[in-house]
Amino acid sequence: MSRVVLKLGGSVVTEKDQPETVATERLAALADDIAAFDGSLVVVHGGGSFGHHHASEHGVSRTRGAADPAAPRAITGAMRELNDAVVDALADAGVPAVPVHPFSVAVRDEDGSLTLPTAAVAGMLDEGFVPVLHGDVVAHAGEGVTILSGDELVVALAESLAADRVGLCSAVPGVLDADGEVVSTVESFDAVADTLGGSDATDVTGGMATKVRELLGLSAPAHVFDADSVAAFLAGDSPGTRID
Amino acid sequence: MSRVVLKLGGSVVTEKDQPETVATERLAALADDIAAFDGSLVVVHGGGSFGHHHASEHGVSRTRGAADPAAPRAITGAMRELNDAVVDALADAGVPAVPVHPFSVAVRDEDGSLTLPTAAVAGMLDEGFVPVLHGDVVAHAGEGVTILSGDELVVALAESLAADRVGLCSAVPGVLDADGEVVSTVESFDAVADTLGGSDATDVTGGMATKVRELLGLSAPAHVFDADSVAAFLAGDSPGTRID
Repeated sequence: MSRVVLKLGGSVVTEKDQPETVATERLAALADDIAAFDGSLVVVHGGGSFGHHHASEHGVSRTRGAADPAAPRAITGAMRELNDAVVDALADAGVPAVPVHPFSVAVRDEDGSLTLPTAAVAGMLDEGFVPVLHGDVVAHAGEGVTILSGDELVVALAESLAADRVGLCSAVPGVLDADGEVVSTVESFDAVADTLGGSDATDVTGGMATKVRELLGLSAPAHVFDADSVAAFLAGDSPGTRID
Repeated sequence: MSRVVLKLGGSVVTEKDQPETVATERLAALADDIAAFDGSLVVVHGGGSFGHHHASEHGVSRTRGAADPAAPRAITGAMRELNDAVVDALADAGVPAVPVHPFSVAVRDEDGSLTLPTAAVAGMLDEGFVPVLHGDVVAHAGEGVTILSGDELVVALAESLAADRVGLCSAVPGVLDADGEVVSTVESFDAVADTLGGSDATDVTGGMATKVRELLGLSAPAHVFDADSVAAFLAGDSPGTRID
C-alpha cells in the first residue's frame, strides 16, 4: 500500500488575504479528492491567514524566538482552530481524519535542528486513521518557541515514515520559470535559484525557494501542484513540478 | 531546582456531576497556589465531566478500543476544550502554561504498553514553560484508540523526566482506610487492597486502587491529597498520603 504525505498550503485552505478565514468551498472539494485515495495518508496543512498573523504580532519566525508563553498559546490556539476546520471537512467527506498538534511532539535544539518523534502518527496510520498535522510553534533551546512550518513537517514526516510520495498543493500550479511557465522537473537548486523568490503575502515560513531546497533533500520524489491537481496526484500521476 | 509532576484530578477541575462544566472558582484558587511554586513543573489533568461522557458514549476504556475515527475526534475535542480552560486559568494567575495534547504524542502496542516520547515536554520545561497535559485517547495497535488516563501520564512523565516529587490532587484528602481516615503512608498494595474500591462517579480510567498500584511503581515519592493541600505540597510538605 502506497504511503503518501500530502501538504495543503496555507493559501489553499484559507483565504490568505482575510484574517482567520477558512476557504470552505475549496476545502470541501479537496476533501472529496482525498476521500477517493486508497492508501496510507498523512495530511499536513499550513497556517495561511490563521497562523501568520499571530506569528507576526509576536515577532516569531523559524529562527527568531519568543519567550513569552502568550506567543505559543495564541499561535497554537489559532492553528488548532484551523486544524479543526480541516479535520471536520475531511471527516464530512468520509476521510478517517484525526488531529495531531506538532507543538505537543516536536522540539528544536540550539542549532535549530528539529526532532519530531512519529510514534503516535505511525500508530494512527497502522489503525487506518489519517493524521492531520499543521504548521505550529515548537520549543526551541535558548529561544523560547519558534515557528515550525508545514514544509518542515512534510520533510520530517516523509523521512521518518518512509513515504513513497510527497505532494505539496500550493496556490501555484508548480515551480514557475522566468516566463511564468511550470518547470516539469527540478533536480538541483542551482538550476532554478534565479527564478525563485519569496511568496507574495506575509509568510514567516519562507516561500517556494525554501520549499524546493527542503524537498530536494528527500528520499521520496516530491510534486508541487495546485488544488486542481490533487486528485491526479493521489491517483499516481505527476502533475505540476516533480522535485527529485 | 526541584522538578514536580502535579496531577489535578478530573473531579477537581470539573463539576463531575454536571456534563462539561469547569469548576471555575476551584481552578482559579488552584492556579494561584501553582503560581507561587518556584521550580520545574508539569501539570496533568483528568477528564471529569468532559472526557468520561464521550468515552462512555463511544464504549471506549483503557482496554476496550474504538475504530471509528469519530470517537477520538469527540473525546480529544472535549478534552482540548477542558485543557484550554485549565491553561487559561493558570495563565491568568501568571503561570507560563502551554498546552500539550497526548493523542499527538503517545501510542500503545498490542499488549497495551504505553510509549510517550517526552522530547517536546522536556524542551518546554527547559524554556521555562509549564506544560499542561490531559487525559486523552491514544492509538492502540489492533484496537483503534483506547483511553489514556491522567494517572498513566503522571507515571510515564515522572519516570521519563526524572521528577523529584509527584502530587495527585483528588476529591479526597488522601487514601482512606475502612474508617474513612487518611492513611499517612502506603508502601505496598496488599496493605490497602481491601479498603480501596472504585470511584463513585462513572470513571473509565479506574479509581484509587489503580492510582495507588501505578504510583507504587514510581522511583519518586508520590503524594495524594485534596485541593486544600496543593499549596502545602508545592511548598515541600507531605499532606495527605505518601506513596513510596
